[in-house]
Amino acid sequence: MKDALPRFDDIRDAAARIAPHARPTPILRSARLDALANAELHFKGEHLQRGGAFKFRGACNAVWSLDDATAARGVVTHSSGNHGNALALAAATRGIAAHVVVPEGAVRAKLEAIERAGAILHRCAPTQAAREAKCAEVQRDTGAELVHPYADTRVMAGQGTLALELLQQAGALDALITPVGGGGLASGVAIAAHGIDPALALFGAEPLGADDAARSLAQGTRVTSVVPDTVCDGLRALVGERNLDALRAHHVEVITVSDAETIAAMQLLWSELKQVVEVSSATVLAAILQQPQRFAGKRVGVVLTGGNVDLAALPW
Amino acid sequence: MKDALPRFDDIRDAAARIAPHARPTPILRSARLDALANAELHFKGEHLQRGGAFKFRGACNAVWSLDDATAARGVVTHSSGNHGNALALAAATRGIAAHVVVPEGAVRAKLEAIERAGAILHRCAPTQAAREAKCAEVQRDTGAELVHPYADTRVMAGQGTLALELLQQAGALDALITPVGGGGLASGVAIAAHGIDPALALFGAEPLGADDAARSLAQGTRVTSVVPDTVCDGLRALVGERNLDALRAHHVEVITVSDAETIAAMQLLWSELKQVVEVSSATVLAAILQQPQRFAGKRVGVVLTGGNVDLAALPW
Repeated sequence: MKDALPRFDDIRDAAARIAPHARPTPILRSARLDALANAELHFKGEHLQRGGAFKFRGACNAVWSLDDATAARGVVTHSSGNHGNALALAAATRGIAAHVVVPEGAVRAKLEAIERAGAILHRCAPTQAAREAKCAEVQRDTGAELVHPYADTRVMAGQGTLALELLQQAGALDALITPVGGGGLASGVAIAAHGIDPALALFGAEPLGADDAARSLAQGTRVTSVVPDTVCDGLRALVGERNLDALRAHHVEVITVSDAETIAAMQLLWSELKQVVEVSSATVLAAILQQPQRFAGKRVGVVLTGGNVDLAALPW
Repeated sequence: MKDALPRFDDIRDAAARIAPHARPTPILRSARLDALANAELHFKGEHLQRGGAFKFRGACNAVWSLDDATAARGVVTHSSGNHGNALALAAATRGIAAHVVVPEGAVRAKLEAIERAGAILHRCAPTQAAREAKCAEVQRDTGAELVHPYADTRVMAGQGTLALELLQQAGALDALITPVGGGGLASGVAIAAHGIDPALALFGAEPLGADDAARSLAQGTRVTSVVPDTVCDGLRALVGERNLDALRAHHVEVITVSDAETIAAMQLLWSELKQVVEVSSATVLAAILQQPQRFAGKRVGVVLTGGNVDLAALPW
């Protein structure tokens, strides 16, 4: 099962596998944000990861998990965002081909970055069906290995490595919060964090306009009817089935935030931390400020997921 | 003479004096910016200094240079920008009063930050004469010590400490570049850098619309007729007399850059370094990209001076 949940040991192995290629990212602090939250916030700066997002960890682990014969045929994914860019960069570290299927109408700057990273772009119509069909076609034609953005064991294990790094840097925490989109990050982080400290309280932040994970946890069954409507372009995917299993097993509490709360939090991160983080990354601070009683007085790990922003189209 | 140039030893003393209060700031790197400049750029991240700008170094050195009796009467300056905020923060570290004279019409967010830092605001009409008159009045009424933003030996020595720190972090450099406004930073850095390595090539970056330092160096006499017209709000001051002496003595070559070049460089710093730096800080990268033959193949120290940006009024 390609999307089985990784074990804690898989995440430790992933950390060793990606260490020669990924950057350790810094912990950032702000006295003013601590005061606003009445908590000790330890921000994990994954916007400073290679490619400007945590996605490089998962893509890199997938690429370096392949045996030589498989790797030689290259890798493929469909994504016009951070995962496509990350897979292109990861493939380049191994000297293999990366095929990225991108929908017509994708943001030109993002496509240029993916091409600059060395990927071969394959264009398709902007529908899920067209993307999957084109992806299957590339697999048939080239023998390239599919690396799904989140429903992939190797990807989840790679994302989980950031929790190992965070807990080593910050020491023991009371709580840890990540954004929730497809759930690759949240599930990997949950398994990694509880492998180190089973008592750690885990939280997810999800846009109100793409709250399928929160609804799925509340209803006890996976909700697939949500049509995403949020400025958080990195969090529009439906949470994967296995990813949802992990959120449930690890008692991850998902807090939903409005786009207005997220945009206000993004401005705080920019003005106080002086860091360019993308809007999806700000959901976590928005959740903390919305629910102060949950975090008051605690040492909280806060994952800033990415920093790839279109400066000509800021959300305020 | 209150604005005499500091000696190298004054800068070393300043480093020890401010060490308990100022933050060591990181060196930031970017493979993409190195490739664009065809040079090794070592960015000194003073936007991550307390108060969001290098100004805290000079203000802190001034505050802690005072004898107890003088300190007890407080400090005063006129500035609605980073120096006012820095002096307020520095005074708070010693538990003394800070008076900041601000012109009517100054940006409300900046005034709020200065008040939050604990300063007493004194409003005046928005002219140079009114600012100086109000400042003199506060000095008469309170006995507070004037701390000028750049024409002050203690301030210049404090700003120079960032060059000591940069050269210790980055190792030997071939060139070093700072923005030039009043010249407090450029003069302190020149004295500090040449105290360590007299062969280091020194550069300044100045907006074309406030190019009094470049003109003064070219003509051999201080030009005071320039009426500033630039988006770089931190670089509109006329270079001080002693500050200009230091630029001349240390053969600082001033490169002038257009606002368009600076804004493009600011966008590069935001998108590649993922750092929120203010527009004045981007003049240095603009100068490097404008004059590639001067920097090609060199190890260059690049001072990012501040990160206090009005997010609602970005210059693009």
